Amino acid sequence: MIFEGGGQGPMAPDPSLNNHHKGDHMERVLLSHGAGGREMVALIERVFLAKYRAPGFTGDDSAILNFGSQALAFTTDSFVVDPIFFPGGDIGRLAVAGTVNDLLTAGARPLALSASFIIEEGFKIATLTAIAASMRQAADEGRVAIVTGDTKVVPKGAADKLFITTAGLGAILKPGVSGAAAVAGDKIILTGSVGDHGTAVMLARENLLQGEAIISDVAPLTELVLALLEAGCEIHAMRDPTRGGIAAALNEIARQSQVSLEIDEARIPVKPGVTAACEALGLEVFQVANEGKMLIFVAPEDAARALDLVKANPYGREARLIGEVKASPPGRVQVRTTIGTARILDMPSGELLPRIC
Amino acid sequence: MIFEGGGQGPMAPDPSLNNHHKGDHMERVLLSHGAGGREMVALIERVFLAKYRAPGFTGDDSAILNFGSQALAFTTDSFVVDPIFFPGGDIGRLAVAGTVNDLLTAGARPLALSASFIIEEGFKIATLTAIAASMRQAADEGRVAIVTGDTKVVPKGAADKLFITTAGLGAILKPGVSGAAAVAGDKIILTGSVGDHGTAVMLARENLLQGEAIISDVAPLTELVLALLEAGCEIHAMRDPTRGGIAAALNEIARQSQVSLEIDEARIPVKPGVTAACEALGLEVFQVANEGKMLIFVAPEDAARALDLVKANPYGREARLIGEVKASPPGRVQVRTTIGTARILDMPSGELLPRIC
Repeated sequence: MIFEGGGQGPMAPDPSLNNHHKGDHMERVLLSHGAGGREMVALIERVFLAKYRAPGFTGDDSAILNFGSQALAFTTDSFVVDPIFFPGGDIGRLAVAGTVNDLLTAGARPLALSASFIIEEGFKIATLTAIAASMRQAADEGRVAIVTGDTKVVPKGAADKLFITTAGLGAILKPGVSGAAAVAGDKIILTGSVGDHGTAVMLARENLLQGEAIISDVAPLTELVLALLEAGCEIHAMRDPTRGGIAAALNEIARQSQVSLEIDEARIPVKPGVTAACEALGLEVFQVANEGKMLIFVAPEDAARALDLVKANPYGREARLIGEVKASPPGRVQVRTTIGTARILDMPSGELLPRIC
Repeated sequence: MIFEGGGQGPMAPDPSLNNHHKGDHMERVLLSHGAGGREMVALIERVFLAKYRAPGFTGDDSAILNFGSQALAFTTDSFVVDPIFFPGGDIGRLAVAGTVNDLLTAGARPLALSASFIIEEGFKIATLTAIAASMRQAADEGRVAIVTGDTKVVPKGAADKLFITTAGLGAILKPGVSGAAAVAGDKIILTGSVGDHGTAVMLARENLLQGEAIISDVAPLTELVLALLEAGCEIHAMRDPTRGGIAAALNEIARQSQVSLEIDEARIPVKPGVTAACEALGLEVFQVANEGKMLIFVAPEDAARALDLVKANPYGREARLIGEVKASPPGRVQVRTTIGTARILDMPSGELLPRIC
């Protein structure tokens, strides 16, 4: 979405912004404001979007720009992950995959990326070279070119090692794909297991070794999504469940589309090692970031065909239909648990995981 | 240019990269690698551009993408200026102006910006709100919309206050405007005094007060440049002389175009307070960053008309013809001094000014 994390729809003032009952001029940004949940949405709404809705504003991960007869998708993200290398990837692969996947959610073919580097003085040049190589590989895999960039070096201590900001440009293949376009009857495809990225990064950060290796899923999903669009599948909405996990992504779409989502918990794949690690770390796996997964809302008549196409892609082998869209109550995400009861899956709030992406 | 700071043309290995004769795997990024001069060019060439020239690569501040029948300019920059508020502007205004001006150098009309924020935990929300307001004002002035963004919050100490990365998209109005397109005979217009931005930031950072206030020139030059393009002036090249000042910008164009530049020192406006401050700070004013100036290379038959158009803009009142383009020797920038001698103006090297933009 524009100013990612939200801004969609009317929103009550969030009391968490009045931290410690300080005067307004003394309020400060908290880690929770960057976590992808409720507090981030409120901060963005208040600071960046109040009285300012630019042309192209969508509430989605990409803005849409009409340019002559063609529509363009345009998006950006900063990456501050710690550590910069983790099982399954690194900050460079993450920076490419994150922006490519945001373009894809707009029904766009990725065309070009920019990459801007903020580097702490003393960073090893060999490490920077390895990260640049990883970005090229991810860009090739994501069928996109990195065409422009910038480097800034800051004195030691002014930044922690390396931050990368990518922006991306895509050509809309299927107009109207949006988090606001899900309709009652749509089936929801999840392309694979959840929680892998956030869990892998947290374990790496805490230097916790696992008997069973947990690997980040970070990947550009260009081929998986383009296969659906090129086959003419009636996709209505897509979202990559990054910060805030599938809990945030599903709640965003329920609110944007003003629909109700019914999810079957038993159908959401979670790797056993991820479940165990989340329990040990005190994490709710549905709130944990993924970086190589997609939630796809597809018209019911195309659901089986779309699922087959997704499963044919290496990143979609474990894809499942996890639920469907109902008309009401609007904005609600309800999970049928494995024991047959129902619970509300809320928008995450609180600190969640800092520096996970 | 792509990966701003350079990469254009063949280049000998830079011995400064072999810092302290350490083994290759131990080399580290130095402040000079981010300063806009010789070392930055060498680092970018080596790390980012070696064996990788993406489609759209130009050696200019913007990449050019052909999209249907229309060409697009695409550029990015990160901003890490310290302090974040300085006389004449702030990091937000700088982040908008810097990217808008880079689009203009491609002969493009700015269409849309993205803005991504890396915020240190504890940053005041009121300050963030003020910076967002400043960005909107600068965007309005630059006739561009900020259409998408991202926020990341990092723990206290992991970043110094606030970094902003903008990317920009523009529609090419005059194809072929490039630092590589200057030809013998072209006249060189400088739109105003040099050294204001870098000097203002350095004085603010060092808490040095001046009897005469020195104000950053940070401004989006959209109206100034569009007036030239819309009037059909035969512009060949433009560059905004930011990091490394006019010394870096002129040397880049001399190299890219393989031409010789002859500059008349007496015609380059420098404010008396800036001259005095540069002497006190030990700075070479031609190497000091500007953020609201443009170097414009124009065919001789259009030079007078272009100068008049520039001078009609509030940001171009002090514009001057400062020199001209000769065929040879290629890559050389020569300055005729005020006492009638000639000296070579080199590409800057060394640390220059960290965190000036």
